[in-house]
Amino acid sequence: MQLDHDNLRALAAVVREGSFERAAAALHVTPSAVSQRIKTLESRMGRLLVLRTIPAQPTDDGRVLVRLAEQAALLEHEALERLGMGEDRPAPSLRIAVNHDSLETWFIEAATRYAEQTRTTLDLISEDQDHTAALLRNGSVLAAVTTLGDPVQGCRVHALGRMRYVATCAPAFHARHFARGVTPDALASAPVLVFNRKDALQAQFARQVMGDTPWQPPTWWVPSSHAFVSATLAGLGWTMNPLPMVREALEDGRLMPLRARAWHDVPLYWQHWRTGAHTMELLTSAVLRAARALVRPARAPVSSPGAGGSGSSSA
Amino acid sequence: MQLDHDNLRALAAVVREGSFERAAAALHVTPSAVSQRIKTLESRMGRLLVLRTIPAQPTDDGRVLVRLAEQAALLEHEALERLGMGEDRPAPSLRIAVNHDSLETWFIEAATRYAEQTRTTLDLISEDQDHTAALLRNGSVLAAVTTLGDPVQGCRVHALGRMRYVATCAPAFHARHFARGVTPDALASAPVLVFNRKDALQAQFARQVMGDTPWQPPTWWVPSSHAFVSATLAGLGWTMNPLPMVREALEDGRLMPLRARAWHDVPLYWQHWRTGAHTMELLTSAVLRAARALVRPARAPVSSPGAGGSGSSSA
Repeated sequence: MQLDHDNLRALAAVVREGSFERAAAALHVTPSAVSQRIKTLESRMGRLLVLRTIPAQPTDDGRVLVRLAEQAALLEHEALERLGMGEDRPAPSLRIAVNHDSLETWFIEAATRYAEQTRTTLDLISEDQDHTAALLRNGSVLAAVTTLGDPVQGCRVHALGRMRYVATCAPAFHARHFARGVTPDALASAPVLVFNRKDALQAQFARQVMGDTPWQPPTWWVPSSHAFVSATLAGLGWTMNPLPMVREALEDGRLMPLRARAWHDVPLYWQHWRTGAHTMELLTSAVLRAARALVRPARAPVSSPGAGGSGSSSA
Repeated sequence: MQLDHDNLRALAAVVREGSFERAAAALHVTPSAVSQRIKTLESRMGRLLVLRTIPAQPTDDGRVLVRLAEQAALLEHEALERLGMGEDRPAPSLRIAVNHDSLETWFIEAATRYAEQTRTTLDLISEDQDHTAALLRNGSVLAAVTTLGDPVQGCRVHALGRMRYVATCAPAFHARHFARGVTPDALASAPVLVFNRKDALQAQFARQVMGDTPWQPPTWWVPSSHAFVSATLAGLGWTMNPLPMVREALEDGRLMPLRARAWHDVPLYWQHWRTGAHTMELLTSAVLRAARALVRPARAPVSSPGAGGSGSSSA
């Protein structure tokens, strides 16, 4: 069985752009041509590949073909570049999932290094760190920064290091709520900042103090990493902040830790589909390098900062 | 017909928490009690109110009752506070939609002012500015920062001012791509940063130069306001940045405008449901005050910065 790559490209464009009309504009064809290509592919496969919702969503079968289309586009781009014939064609964009806090801190440095070596670009999806692996598994993305250390079937995994989260608040907030220590009573009434419903870091910290006592403090929901730090500085609540975003404020005293050693380390991994594409190797090496900003695993000696990031395995 | 408020609270908790289990934990009852309350409410109304999806989603009818539950909770909280009896009960959280760039720039100041005057907190939802009105209209939120100036039925609207977006890039990027001016050819090949598929600001700017010529430059998709600025500073592409986030970088030369007067002003409005709650008035006045950081409408004299923000109307 052979697949028509024009049809695959049409499917990938519909999923990427979210509608048949926008996919048509991107491919410089009419919407009915896009529709025809997808119908042909679906009847060929004998399966529904894309749900005609707003935005259009791939089925599980459709995602497998979208990933195939993206991998093929990448390999095709690389082959044409090698032949010196890629210049007049748009370079593909690699769809990558990155957890919010990595995107806000070290990931742009990786993107910058990567950009120096390729004409391809990145199509970044920002997700909660425990949920980026789902996007990788269902084929929505080609690679992800994730908390999942076990390789997703078909992927290679590299340890990146740990993102340290420190329980912090403004000094005036500390004086008002924690002057007598971080007690269960104090935690029960002190307002807390939470990113969104998927963010369990504050509840995990509270459990160390409260045990199984239900914890329902006044809660500010602030779904933006940067606004999150501003809200901590303004004294709206205490929260678990990524160390790279609050290091300066901790050093100059605008923020303080709730108590000594009030941190939690989250190990991060880079997982990517084995595409055979050189571009993915370039990206991986840029990511491993920029991730040196993270905390190394405890067993890695400080004098050898690269050691923790180079461990890798695949499935 | 009378509505049982325990049942309404159970519905609101399921929608807020996303599942029957989490709603049960929040209400200190069993999941089967939550399920029973919602079934009772649904049979009473003769309509399906919540879809048992992951996360649980309200139907259109369900949303009307969720909003009712939230408004009632707010009024109840205020009455008990006035009677000096609210202290031992958790204060409600007002669900508010805020566009990404407002959240990253001026909105936390409004939240801080608000927090000084109330025990209630905010449950912020971050959305694209043209899409916050949809959340308001379907009753998902009690108020929103939105680009929609026409009052949503049942809401009051206040003009906030304009968020100025400036087409910016790093000086080295300008030298490489725009040394001969912002021409159609230059724009066709210069990489651009786009927030997500809903972000049309760059395409609007390009249309001024390119007219109806299709525009498909190399695109970096970076769905985070702060990473967006970092990526511009790193020279990954040009983009429309919110002026408050790049003012300093423009002043000290780390960024430059693509050309003279390369900006686009987006008018913002504060719309809120008329709840009769004093708390909403407190929030509205905090929002109007913090929004003075925005660009005033052209007709407002500079010497009277409050004039543009006080216009309001209702539907």
